[in-house]
Amino acid sequence: MPDEKSLHMSPDDFRRHGHAVIDWIADYYARIESFPVLSEVEPGKIRAQLPPEAPNQGEEFSTILKDMEKLLPGITHWQSPNFFAYFPANASGPAILGDLLSSGLGVQGMLWSTSPACTELETHVLDWLVPVLGLPEKFLSTTSGGGVIQDTASSSSLCALLAGRERATNFATNQRGCDGRLVAYTSTQAHSSIEKAVKIAGIGLANLRLIEVDQNFALRADQLARQIEADQRAGLVPCFVTATVGTTSSNAFDPVAQIGPICRQHNIWLHVDAAMSGTAALCPEFRHIHDGLEFADSYCFNPHKWMFTNFDCDCFWVANRKSLIETLSILPEYLRNKATESGAVIDYRDWHIQLGRRFRSLKLWFVIRHYGIQGLQYHIRRHVALAQEFADWVKKDDRFELAAPVPLNLVCFRHRRGDAFNQKLMDRLNRSGALFLTHTKLNGNLTLRFCVGQTHTAARHVQRAWKRIQEETGQLEGEKSDGKSSYGRLPRPG
Amino acid sequence: MPDEKSLHMSPDDFRRHGHAVIDWIADYYARIESFPVLSEVEPGKIRAQLPPEAPNQGEEFSTILKDMEKLLPGITHWQSPNFFAYFPANASGPAILGDLLSSGLGVQGMLWSTSPACTELETHVLDWLVPVLGLPEKFLSTTSGGGVIQDTASSSSLCALLAGRERATNFATNQRGCDGRLVAYTSTQAHSSIEKAVKIAGIGLANLRLIEVDQNFALRADQLARQIEADQRAGLVPCFVTATVGTTSSNAFDPVAQIGPICRQHNIWLHVDAAMSGTAALCPEFRHIHDGLEFADSYCFNPHKWMFTNFDCDCFWVANRKSLIETLSILPEYLRNKATESGAVIDYRDWHIQLGRRFRSLKLWFVIRHYGIQGLQYHIRRHVALAQEFADWVKKDDRFELAAPVPLNLVCFRHRRGDAFNQKLMDRLNRSGALFLTHTKLNGNLTLRFCVGQTHTAARHVQRAWKRIQEETGQLEGEKSDGKSSYGRLPRPG
Repeated sequence: MPDEKSLHMSPDDFRRHGHAVIDWIADYYARIESFPVLSEVEPGKIRAQLPPEAPNQGEEFSTILKDMEKLLPGITHWQSPNFFAYFPANASGPAILGDLLSSGLGVQGMLWSTSPACTELETHVLDWLVPVLGLPEKFLSTTSGGGVIQDTASSSSLCALLAGRERATNFATNQRGCDGRLVAYTSTQAHSSIEKAVKIAGIGLANLRLIEVDQNFALRADQLARQIEADQRAGLVPCFVTATVGTTSSNAFDPVAQIGPICRQHNIWLHVDAAMSGTAALCPEFRHIHDGLEFADSYCFNPHKWMFTNFDCDCFWVANRKSLIETLSILPEYLRNKATESGAVIDYRDWHIQLGRRFRSLKLWFVIRHYGIQGLQYHIRRHVALAQEFADWVKKDDRFELAAPVPLNLVCFRHRRGDAFNQKLMDRLNRSGALFLTHTKLNGNLTLRFCVGQTHTAARHVQRAWKRIQEETGQLEGEKSDGKSSYGRLPRPG
Repeated sequence: MPDEKSLHMSPDDFRRHGHAVIDWIADYYARIESFPVLSEVEPGKIRAQLPPEAPNQGEEFSTILKDMEKLLPGITHWQSPNFFAYFPANASGPAILGDLLSSGLGVQGMLWSTSPACTELETHVLDWLVPVLGLPEKFLSTTSGGGVIQDTASSSSLCALLAGRERATNFATNQRGCDGRLVAYTSTQAHSSIEKAVKIAGIGLANLRLIEVDQNFALRADQLARQIEADQRAGLVPCFVTATVGTTSSNAFDPVAQIGPICRQHNIWLHVDAAMSGTAALCPEFRHIHDGLEFADSYCFNPHKWMFTNFDCDCFWVANRKSLIETLSILPEYLRNKATESGAVIDYRDWHIQLGRRFRSLKLWFVIRHYGIQGLQYHIRRHVALAQEFADWVKKDDRFELAAPVPLNLVCFRHRRGDAFNQKLMDRLNRSGALFLTHTKLNGNLTLRFCVGQTHTAARHVQRAWKRIQEETGQLEGEKSDGKSSYGRLPRPG
């Protein structure tokens, strides 16, 4: 029988075009420092170049690939070694290629049986990480717990909150809905995803207690205990505490070892969010960030932030997988199968919000094997050392001050002339294209954040960034204040 | 200054290893029909081959890539042309390569400013799809609505439910939490993600009304109206209806044109879930599946199911983006920026659960351009024609019956000898490795599902599948019933 007409890419064409795409990416990394780190386009510019309607006829692949150049002015280059903004989202060769294999295989891992290797490699690699991060044994799949890859820490927080909500109400909330009495806790410095999660879960923002922090921006355990007891006296039901190991604003570390016993005493689910900083625990000298984790019911960190694994890859562990599974389990007839019913396998669909899931552990497996634990440690130590050096330069420059302790790779600092000056300085630096950093507010003051975590960031990039900061500061200090604000990224001067 | 020691993959090594991975994938597709479609491994077999501990030292990339062979026995081959199970999750060359570029660029699209091209291409491509799918104009970003790429239809349903919940309570639920009075509606045949969403959202399963279906498994609008009115009389607050355009069990189509006016009358958010079948609307002759969509507040379909775009890619539109954004918006200080404050841009972080997001529109852009709309129509029509042909063969074989109408590419059928026989038949077929199909229950009867949607499925695969079904049926009919059950995929006979 003759083959039918097909418009699909043939294996030979895939080979040829695939090599071209690989080359494009290799070339992109070779020229990445030539682009302004923060995109300079005005809103709408990228769209305006694109045809208003979808093409009726197929196009040549080479034409499509060439159009990537049209997008480049609209790219903020997260993989640039001069990217010091937010928290990093770093990637690496082995991660990109592991992820490519996941796309190529195109399997679904919602059930063990829908691709056993997808489930088993994920469980295995997450078990690998337990001892090397100094996590408690109860997180191992071979004990009562286990790990799963989520897309983001936001999703992990939400799943943890739901499990805490159900445990506190004997799984009745799933059936009857929330009744307005559940209360959750975190610090004023916690990630915005906690706020989003309590809204989503039907608990309501009014029932999220933002506990005060100490002078280092870490949650005050005494305040937490006091608030929990007050809520209990008021007839409310405390169900969930998130402690942050490395806050987004200033990399503060909540005292998990103090928070843990309070949660245990009141039988409240304790989730620990170590989204960026968890990676540091690969190094024994930083492993103290996990002190107290034996009290945690769940924990997450993001290899897609600082562990060279491209987005999305958030590793989430629970101490008691039954609580999580009972919270999220569904089993319609069309998903029933013998392996599930045997109870001998993990079906990850019951470990997160989504049903479908891709083979995400491949990229993590590739990263761990390419670098080895020692290789990962080496690069994490380099990043921390570079940030510490940067902090030293800040300290030695009288015009600046550090705004928070620098435990790892994030430096919060500001010029002593106040918010308006710091805003202008940041805008000038980012408009220069030479580097990209972002800000936060600490004690009400606008503060610059300089985070060293990009895969290819080396000493020269940090040195150049500091030199640029000093130059722009000098120019800005020399400018007469003319009352006009230069706020805004646009228009670019000159 | 000399470069520091680096363990990262050099651009040249990336090029070399990348070509090897592309070749591996091309070869995989060339040999994919040689593998049993459904993995035959026993639980634990894949893990047992892997070292118990993470490697301390890095390994050669060629060693890592070679280990992909160890995983293959644990792969259920979703991209095999002999995969007829569940709904498909099809992929294609242009999608895989577009996704590879997304991994390579490694940008975050949580805000417009964090990579304007990531946001603008997504908005643009989703606008492209509105006319070619026959969606109402109100879903265009240039009107009051707009589209966003979610990971899965589960997430879209959850976001739609949350927006409906908030609209029904004047956004008070986000603040105060659920109060037990909200009610949601869908049919008995809806996807399990609706049940999961009402649990997550704090509404509770007891407040989800599963409305009866007609003889074609489509929601009965009269029953919906009656139930809504009864709930209102009881002082409850109806907030959300999901209509399904192509149910998972049997590809039934809820009457959106009848459901819509009921929702409008009672001001209830109407979400339409067309996860797999939506793709068919690319063809004018199937566009009637979108009749009544002008009443919908939100709609989704999954290019990662049937439109040759590898997972994850669910397209979600809303008629009024303000409702969605107000429901999910958060703006911590560290994400503030001028572009956001100008109001001139879309920040997609407020359109879904997660904060971080990858550049997912690239793969969709590549697919649409590679095939063109006509090319996509051609392949969708082929799939539908093959399924219709299969249904004709079933109808002509007296031993079998169709269990539901076959509007598109899913055939629900069963042998007339009842559940035990059909279960045995399915188990034998799947154990043969020659094809993979799954089951559901319709009117309480075990029913086989045969879905034609894999990228490379051609006439010969469907013909061979039917031949195999007839052969195995003949053998099974000839076997003496010995009272022993042959249930279970394991052990494999022979």
